[in-house]
Formats: sequence, structure tokens, C-alpha cells
Amino acid sequence: MARQDRSARRSHSESSLEPRLSRASVGRLSLYLRRLEEFQRAGIHRISSNRLGQPLAITDTQVRKDLAFLGRLGQPGIGYDVDDLIGSIRSTLGIDRCWSAALVGVGNLARALLRYNGFIERGFRIVALFDSDLRKVGQAVDDLTIYPVSRMKEIIATTGAELGILTVPASAVQNVADELVAAGIKGLLNFAPGLIRTRPGISVVNVDLTVQLEQLAFLVHLTSTEPLS
Amino acid sequence: MARQDRSARRSHSESSLEPRLSRASVGRLSLYLRRLEEFQRAGIHRISSNRLGQPLAITDTQVRKDLAFLGRLGQPGIGYDVDDLIGSIRSTLGIDRCWSAALVGVGNLARALLRYNGFIERGFRIVALFDSDLRKVGQAVDDLTIYPVSRMKEIIATTGAELGILTVPASAVQNVADELVAAGIKGLLNFAPGLIRTRPGISVVNVDLTVQLEQLAFLVHLTSTEPLS
Repeated sequence: MARQDRSARRSHSESSLEPRLSRASVGRLSLYLRRLEEFQRAGIHRISSNRLGQPLAITDTQVRKDLAFLGRLGQPGIGYDVDDLIGSIRSTLGIDRCWSAALVGVGNLARALLRYNGFIERGFRIVALFDSDLRKVGQAVDDLTIYPVSRMKEIIATTGAELGILTVPASAVQNVADELVAAGIKGLLNFAPGLIRTRPGISVVNVDLTVQLEQLAFLVHLTSTEPLS
Repeated sequence: MARQDRSARRSHSESSLEPRLSRASVGRLSLYLRRLEEFQRAGIHRISSNRLGQPLAITDTQVRKDLAFLGRLGQPGIGYDVDDLIGSIRSTLGIDRCWSAALVGVGNLARALLRYNGFIERGFRIVALFDSDLRKVGQAVDDLTIYPVSRMKEIIATTGAELGILTVPASAVQNVADELVAAGIKGLLNFAPGLIRTRPGISVVNVDLTVQLEQLAFLVHLTSTEPLS
């Protein structure tokens, strides 16, 4: 579950169905993209809304609504062109290019993220590492040197990092966010609990891993207490 | 962004506003809960929908709609009772008790999750660790011994684990899921890419960390290309 610091509004001329691309829609577009790429790899060129949504438990009405927002209308009985759709989603999400990120707080989660193939496959590269622990500074993780937070401005300018990934303790998160923004970072992905206050124009996505576990507990609780038909 | 293997339907007698508690609503209830607990710690006993939703960028209309689903109706000019609301959300989500989880795949992400205070604070305990790598088997991480996957059934029965957390490579995820389900696990939290196929009655929440980064890229892209008013 991600929360964002402001709603994702955009003007839209091609369709009046959905003038606002909500955070939920953006998330679904990401999921469609994964599926579509699987179909592309399997040599499938056309796909129905049903086949796209069904494994994700998303109704075809919702799929059609989300894709209509892109100006992509499937043809009845024929469906959507897989390649076209991939291109549309990537350009709408702004991921038809690479993004580079600086990561602050090099603990276990950071190491897991650095080795997470999904990021690289999707065009996200971690290009700089920072830590406030001077014992870690100077060490290398996967060919990246860990720099002290004091050199953030210089290293971010050199590497051209645009996004910041925060894997620091909750107590440090606001300070680190402020320093990243001061160094020119435009978007923050925060894994620490607690909300970040930023100025307008800076985007924040908070990742709260407990929310996911709570969703799971809710589903299991629901199944055990109110069996579904 | 989490996807679930089926929608979260429940019958609901107290309110006809929202007969279906969507995955998005469940996520928002988790977020409200965090905020409410902060207010509780700060000694605040009453809260308005606006004050609850605003830092989360959730409109007060949405907040009121979500809370109405719980049968909790705020009083105009007075707001909601913080303690009552916390109790309602916890019982609706099924987290008014502890949940125990078995974790499979003890790499960096697993170590990060084991040390993630948020889980313990929210009543989630990791009670068993498994790995297929025999070099890891027998080692202890945070007082938990790593067991071989072959002993899953026995250890899960002994520990009473109900949820399974999968931090294994994508290639292993379906097999591990099948073994966890065979061992009696009712809900799976999957950090690996790729969808898990399970039988009805088993809940799955997939955590795709790239989706969060893509949401952030989209927001930054949007800000840079279409400045908001």
C-alpha cells in the first residue's frame, strides 16, 4: 500500500471517462504492464480485457476503464494490441526512459533493494549510496561506494540521481528527506514509518510493509469468519 | 501496491453506503489506524475526518465513507472518538489479536523484515524460518533457527504459524507456496515477482516493490511535464 503526498491529477483530452488518474489506477497500470510484457515475451499480440484482468482479480470493466484513460480502446472480439498498450502505459507512467535513484541508509533492506532485479529490469538504477554511520562510509556494496551524508549534494549532482530511496530509521527520515530535497531530488520513496513533510513539487510515496500484512490478515480473517459463496 | 487473489467481499448490515470493502479501503483503514494511534499517544480523544485524512492526502468525503462502512458515524462539529475508532478498525481488519507467520527464504529482505519493528508493534510475529540452502539451515537469525523446507509441515504445526511470508526467488515461489499451503498456511505475503496460483480459501497478497517506484516516477514525471495549479 503506497500513499502519496498529493493526488495525481492531469488534464485529459482523449477521454471523459476518467479525468483523474488515481493512485490506484497508476498501480493497476503497473500491474497490467507486467502482464502485458509476459504476453509479449510469449509471442501473444492481442489480448482481451478479461484475460488481462482475470489473474490480477481486476474486473474487465475496470481494465477497460483504466485503458480508456490512455485513449486505448480495445476492439470488441479482437481486444487490445499488446505492443501498443505497453508503449502507451510506459509513456503515461513516464517510464519510457531510465530513472536513477540515490539510496540513503545501507542496511538489510537497502541490500535487498540493490539486488532486486525488478528495479533494473524496469529501468530504475540505484546510482549512489549514503549512510550516516561512518563505519559504513567508504565500503562498497555491489560496486557502489557508500558516501557520508555530508557529501550528498555533490554526489547527487555528479550522478544525476532524480529519485531518493529512504531506508533509514523513522527518527532520521525527515532530516534525510530535507537533505535529499536540498540536493535536488524530486521524488522520495520512503520505507520508514511516519509521514514526510515536503514542499510542493516534491513527490513522496510511502511504503508501509505492515499495511500489506494487515491486508493479508484481513483476508484470512474474512475467509475464516464469513465463508464466501 | 498490493494485489489480492480475490476481492474482499463481506455482508454488511449496518450501512448500505458501501457493501463491499475494497482492497483500497482496507489499505486506507490501515493508514487511518496508524494516524489514530499517533493521536491516541498524543492524548487526543476526538478527531475530525479532515484532520484524519489530510496528512494522508485522502479527502474527508472518502474518510467519512470508509468509516461509515464500520458503522462509525462522526458527529458534525465533534468528530470521531479516537479510542472507539481504533477498536472498530482493529476488529474489522481482524488485527485485534496477534498473527504469527512463517518466513521462507532467508536473504537480505528476510533479515530486514525480521528487524522491522512495525510488524511486532502491529501484532505480527515471525515464528519460523525456512530456507532451501542447506548452508543456511541450522543457523540462527534473531533467536530463530533456520529449518530446511522438508520440515515445514512439522514446524508450522508446532509453532502455529498462520501466515506465510515468501522472500524467495521468482522461480521458487509457486513450489514454496504449494508447500506452505500443504502445511496448513491460510495466507501468503509474496515479495517475489510473478503470480501465485492457489486453491480457493487461500489468500494471497503480492508486494511488488517496483510498482511503488513506478508510482513515484509517474508523480515526478507529471510534476515536471504538467505543472499543477
